[in-house]
Amino acid sequence: MEQHEISKAVIRRLPRYYRYLGDLMDAGVERISSAELSAKMNVTASQIRQDLNNFGGFGQQGYGYNVKYLYNEIAKILGLDNVHNLVIIGAGKLGQAIANYSSFEKRGFIIKAMFDNNKDYFGRKVGDIEIMNVDELSDYLSNNNIDIAAITVPKEAVNPIADILVKCGIKAVWNFAPVDLELPKGIIVENVHLLDSLMQLSYNLTEYEHTR
Amino acid sequence: MEQHEISKAVIRRLPRYYRYLGDLMDAGVERISSAELSAKMNVTASQIRQDLNNFGGFGQQGYGYNVKYLYNEIAKILGLDNVHNLVIIGAGKLGQAIANYSSFEKRGFIIKAMFDNNKDYFGRKVGDIEIMNVDELSDYLSNNNIDIAAITVPKEAVNPIADILVKCGIKAVWNFAPVDLELPKGIIVENVHLLDSLMQLSYNLTEYEHTR
Repeated sequence: MEQHEISKAVIRRLPRYYRYLGDLMDAGVERISSAELSAKMNVTASQIRQDLNNFGGFGQQGYGYNVKYLYNEIAKILGLDNVHNLVIIGAGKLGQAIANYSSFEKRGFIIKAMFDNNKDYFGRKVGDIEIMNVDELSDYLSNNNIDIAAITVPKEAVNPIADILVKCGIKAVWNFAPVDLELPKGIIVENVHLLDSLMQLSYNLTEYEHTR
Repeated sequence: MEQHEISKAVIRRLPRYYRYLGDLMDAGVERISSAELSAKMNVTASQIRQDLNNFGGFGQQGYGYNVKYLYNEIAKILGLDNVHNLVIIGAGKLGQAIANYSSFEKRGFIIKAMFDNNKDYFGRKVGDIEIMNVDELSDYLSNNNIDIAAITVPKEAVNPIADILVKCGIKAVWNFAPVDLELPKGIIVENVHLLDSLMQLSYNLTEYEHTR
């Protein structure tokens, strides 16, 4: 890699910047200072400047940020100027919830198909998205240009799915199963571990009650 | 606060330790060195020692960790030795997916009721959990010992719900709506922003493709 590595904390904040700038655009705001953005986002102004300086800055001293320009630049940094095709593996409630999120498609994440091993689901649709037999996953991936696979199957079912995805050259996995996938280097993994999140909440709640 | 503040990064790793130790227990492992745990978890051994030293250590030099003891200690740190009662507000697919997670109840997170404003849902059940009219939320919270509210409603519906939760003295909010809640200090907020997660994935994918 030629450019310097951006820290995970910065990467975690980028979608928030993007979200806030989108809200500002919707509200007709054209220009904002880092101080104002800071107050809105509960991040220090110097943090915002530092974060954005990782990518070249985008602001002018004493002039602030052009909201639309910054929004579009962050979109490019996040890769949202490209369309990403997804499949969802696991057509249970969680898979269906994800399939129903209209905000994904608006950002260029297009869900092309869902897969499950439960034959009661085969041929049914969630919105426009067909639920297919997971036995067809391998063929489907070979014949379609899919970048991202969302995994919403139970823990026990993950490994055979992961094997198929690796064999078919998937680029990225969005993993909702409560396991840390061991995939070959070069495959991007992003986890959403709901129980981990709930345990963090529980930790903070317990801490807060102890210190009150 | 008397004790020193634990960093967010440590808190994020605790549920992972807990998960791995649980798997080790299930596999009948009684003792593990930080080096072995490190190899399994893809965290350096010194990181593990540092993380656990925040809470007093739990290991003996050259002897490693007692798996069951460490598992139980981390459970206490995470507040899992207490039962937490939850309600879910929003009985759509995502709310139903959360209600269906059997692993929450095993860790002491008990979902007591769901609420929605769609009358087609009223009186229906997800597993054993009844879906109630959101107009009854305030009364329900006043008469039941609820610690945590999971919010799975659309963005537009969040603010009036948050107002009710604050008025009724909720302790913690598990927020799935794509907004950063502004709640009074002292109310714990844990966010699961699915679109943010997907955008982080997209960032990493884009970065990887640029540097290949």
